[in-house]
Amino acid sequence: MQIGLVGLGKMGGNMRERLRRAGHTVIGFDTNPAVSDVPHLSDLVDQLDGPRAVWVMVPAGGPTQEVIDRLASLLKHDDVVVDGGNSRWTDDEKHAKELAARGIGFVDAGVSGGVWGLEHGYALMVGGEAEYVERLKPVFDALKPDGPYGYVHAGKVGAGHFAKMVHNGIEYAMMQAYAEGWELLEKVDSVDNVREVFRSWQDGTVIRSWLLDLAVNALDDDEHLRKLRGYAEDSGEGRWTVEAAIDNAVPLPAITASLFARFASRQEDSPQMKMVAALRNQFGGHAVETKKA
Amino acid sequence: MQIGLVGLGKMGGNMRERLRRAGHTVIGFDTNPAVSDVPHLSDLVDQLDGPRAVWVMVPAGGPTQEVIDRLASLLKHDDVVVDGGNSRWTDDEKHAKELAARGIGFVDAGVSGGVWGLEHGYALMVGGEAEYVERLKPVFDALKPDGPYGYVHAGKVGAGHFAKMVHNGIEYAMMQAYAEGWELLEKVDSVDNVREVFRSWQDGTVIRSWLLDLAVNALDDDEHLRKLRGYAEDSGEGRWTVEAAIDNAVPLPAITASLFARFASRQEDSPQMKMVAALRNQFGGHAVETKKA
Amino acid sequence: MQIGLVGLGKMGGNMRERLRRAGHTVIGFDTNPAVSDVPHLSDLVDQLDGPRAVWVMVPAGGPTQEVIDRLASLLKHDDVVVDGGNSRWTDDEKHAKELAARGIGFVDAGVSGGVWGLEHGYALMVGGEAEYVERLKPVFDALKPDGPYGYVHAGKVGAGHFAKMVHNGIEYAMMQAYAEGWELLEKVDSVDNVREVFRSWQDGTVIRSWLLDLAVNALDDDEHLRKLRGYAEDSGEGRWTVEAAIDNAVPLPAITASLFARFASRQEDSPQMKMVAALRNQFGGHAVETKKA
Amino acid sequence: MQIGLVGLGKMGGNMRERLRRAGHTVIGFDTNPAVSDVPHLSDLVDQLDGPRAVWVMVPAGGPTQEVIDRLASLLKHDDVVVDGGNSRWTDDEKHAKELAARGIGFVDAGVSGGVWGLEHGYALMVGGEAEYVERLKPVFDALKPDGPYGYVHAGKVGAGHFAKMVHNGIEYAMMQAYAEGWELLEKVDSVDNVREVFRSWQDGTVIRSWLLDLAVNALDDDEHLRKLRGYAEDSGEGRWTVEAAIDNAVPLPAITASLFARFASRQEDSPQMKMVAALRNQFGGHAVETKKA
Repeated sequence: MQIGLVGLGKMGGNMRERLRRAGHTVIGFDTNPAVSDVPHLSDLVDQLDGPRAVWVMVPAGGPTQEVIDRLASLLKHDDVVVDGGNSRWTDDEKHAKELAARGIGFVDAGVSGGVWGLEHGYALMVGGEAEYVERLKPVFDALKPDGPYGYVHAGKVGAGHFAKMVHNGIEYAMMQAYAEGWELLEKVDSVDNVREVFRSWQDGTVIRSWLLDLAVNALDDDEHLRKLRGYAEDSGEGRWTVEAAIDNAVPLPAITASLFARFASRQEDSPQMKMVAALRNQFGGHAVETKKA
Repeated sequence: MQIGLVGLGKMGGNMRERLRRAGHTVIGFDTNPAVSDVPHLSDLVDQLDGPRAVWVMVPAGGPTQEVIDRLASLLKHDDVVVDGGNSRWTDDEKHAKELAARGIGFVDAGVSGGVWGLEHGYALMVGGEAEYVERLKPVFDALKPDGPYGYVHAGKVGAGHFAKMVHNGIEYAMMQAYAEGWELLEKVDSVDNVREVFRSWQDGTVIRSWLLDLAVNALDDDEHLRKLRGYAEDSGEGRWTVEAAIDNAVPLPAITASLFARFASRQEDSPQMKMVAALRNQFGGHAVETKKA
Repeated sequence: MQIGLVGLGKMGGNMRERLRRAGHTVIGFDTNPAVSDVPHLSDLVDQLDGPRAVWVMVPAGGPTQEVIDRLASLLKHDDVVVDGGNSRWTDDEKHAKELAARGIGFVDAGVSGGVWGLEHGYALMVGGEAEYVERLKPVFDALKPDGPYGYVHAGKVGAGHFAKMVHNGIEYAMMQAYAEGWELLEKVDSVDNVREVFRSWQDGTVIRSWLLDLAVNALDDDEHLRKLRGYAEDSGEGRWTVEAAIDNAVPLPAITASLFARFASRQEDSPQMKMVAALRNQFGGHAVETKKA
Repeated sequence: MQIGLVGLGKMGGNMRERLRRAGHTVIGFDTNPAVSDVPHLSDLVDQLDGPRAVWVMVPAGGPTQEVIDRLASLLKHDDVVVDGGNSRWTDDEKHAKELAARGIGFVDAGVSGGVWGLEHGYALMVGGEAEYVERLKPVFDALKPDGPYGYVHAGKVGAGHFAKMVHNGIEYAMMQAYAEGWELLEKVDSVDNVREVFRSWQDGTVIRSWLLDLAVNALDDDEHLRKLRGYAEDSGEGRWTVEAAIDNAVPLPAITASLFARFASRQEDSPQMKMVAALRNQFGGHAVETKKA
């Protein structure tokens, strides 16, 4: 089928390629003319036959809002927009309403796959009305991995991004789990060969996983990770997962601990630990470490 | 090769079977005569040619100590004992010394695989001197899964159980990660079909894993886990992991949160939350829930 | 001075009393005619001389918004509104702008003191422009405790509620700290008399505090808190504190753990622990506890 | 009454002074002759009339064991030893048995008070048989603060140190609570004056406490704690509290989070966060921060 694709960065560019390999006609637009198929977004719309489908793959927040606004004015009744970016699920209902006011459909798609997606396929979690989801099925089929898994219609508008967000929350805690275990193994004397312990875990264990395979890859590159700083960014979904949990009074101790460990990793020095040190000094006369001049 | 196997419960019985399928001669002893190959432990020792190898697969603590003590008196110089049970790594050095005093070798083996091990193979993490580990290689090869993974000589005496203990600590946090995500998805209205979300994650995602596959199995049996109570035991290794972390001043927030969640799950009522409720009532006149008579 | 007071519930009613004892003229309005001084909000406005000051003491969210909206239309240029309720600090800027559009000032006041405030005084944390804060000083002085503490002009609009919110976040973790310690002491055999241990801590220790005094009061009423359920509500500020921390990438492990413990205390059964139990059963054949019919 | 005091460091020296001010006869011994009253421990024993009481105030572990061993051989039937150091409660029963074998009594005393104890008094939590505790009452009365609080006979041998250990665990979480709140307040723009917010909390709030008073002292010295590093030691009791909780299956999320925050504060770089960064790079091509050469 035909599809418009707005945003041809690392993810969008690879998705265009995977869709074309599957025989679909993709009209891509990007503000970077070097990668764009058409000079303007309006050209993209003009080149698609109706009812049109346009996949938006730009950064969450302002950029996505801007593209949705423009599409609202360019598209026609019965066209459909897919937001495949990392939008917060709370934005989806707003976008769906805005487009519905003009008779345009909306589907949200959480996409996982990163740099491996082009070859292996992208896991897709989608939300929206069955009518629109069905229409886009050929596109989803082309993007998803071969085999029985990697695609789900999770529920109403927003459910796709919500499911992807929770996926990322789980991912945070799984990464933290391996990281904590690795640090402890590296710390003790009796274990000589932590990298080989990790490698051995890739079969027969309860904790075998794709993330574990990646950990082994990383240790093969740099056995004790000496080249890295212990500094980890977070991409938004972890924060939103905790906020969603708070809204729903669901306790998420492991996921939240994983998020906070990242926050702490980015601090040059810990203000809260200054206060703890100051208090210990006040009541116990315990020595404090002072900053070097 | 020949090997004695002490303890023929769920794990030991299956390991005997897997070793025999691989062509090894196994003399098994168990206090339950219905499954034992010989009437007494001394018969097991008598039927093995020297230098002997005896694999101990009985509960950690007292039962393992008892078998080690008896083997110390029955075995000869240059024989070797493998402790494949769930012993705490701190016991291993003690056992190794006790046996070394009589010239008997000792190897500790952390074993993962549970009910799936007979067919799929058992992951093995072993600790001890290279000489003894090498001698036991044919047994390890028979027990481990086919393929390149599932076996490691992790280090000195105790390193096998230590690595297995950390494996279990990681396992706790991974289980908690999926469990937290599942609870949050079940709680929100927009997601209709949590089981299918989990199923879809089995390919193309960052969080695909064997545990995820098992979660899907569990949800196929009972979609909303309505038949279960939210009650989880812990088996010792999680506690030991946290204790080892404390000894080594390593922060393990996600693993520890997972352990504490299990502790809390087993309380009929939470004493600490009674105190919180009592305090809220004291300063704010907030209502408390009282026990029903 | 003269002040209007909207909302005469448990807190507002006591504040009216404390203000009157200090010689101020208070015109109180409540939708409950039994406690209201005037029949309508407009009467309250009419009975005050300009420039007027009106203190709003109604539930956060909708009710506060409604009163602010009505006051915006009733008050005149140079009047000032104080929001002393538990509003989220993010609402304050919105309210301030809405009122500023008509030349009306706005001050937010976080108020602590609960049922003890009438006699002991209320701690006040206020935010807003110095001009308005100064004008209200006599009212703040009457409400606050005697002595040098219990009042602060914390910063710009919103700073009062923000400081009060953080106060409550700290309160959550302090309550949790005592509660955890109490549970552990109650659990061990060697300690005979946990209540007397708590009582003894009221002097000479590092952890002496007003909350500790309240804990002793509670234990004097019910030594082992046998009459209570381990069930604790949360009032919003704890959640907002964690959300503010996430917005600012500040790790709050102890405060968040305290909030999650309350969430868990309110669950009949733990969905996440069902999943953990289900997974243990899948890989290890571990028994699960099933619901009683 | 007469009492021997072994260990005249910061704590022991001040306790000797406080006991003497109360009219007791104290014979102090220290390995540092500059502060010792007698040249040898045996002289201390010789100068006391029987039945003797000797208070041990030396570092926990080896040094305490050594003094107990020597006193076991020097003291007579019906004498009594008090361990007022920071011993782990599990050592107390061992010490009590060792001394009981020679008819010597044993009492353990957890002592709080730090540098403030000389003037204000030391909070005492004691464990042991009532007979010995009674005999030492005049000493306890002299050391404790004036007034009704600051002393408890908590239970059997070990109960004193156990109660003191839990006191310290609570202390960790309370310090963490204030520290988290302080960091969040310092981070946001709307709050101008965090120190004055803390000062104001000293009356009328739920969180007023002695630790809060100390926090204000610290901020008066250094408003933003700019002179300090965010580096906090831990003294053993926090670790033991978590270990005791694990032994008793009691969840301590806030206290443990506080302990882990201190562990993390002492790491130059976080190994676990290196692994998280490495994994993010593996699956997402996310940039990592590398060490500077």
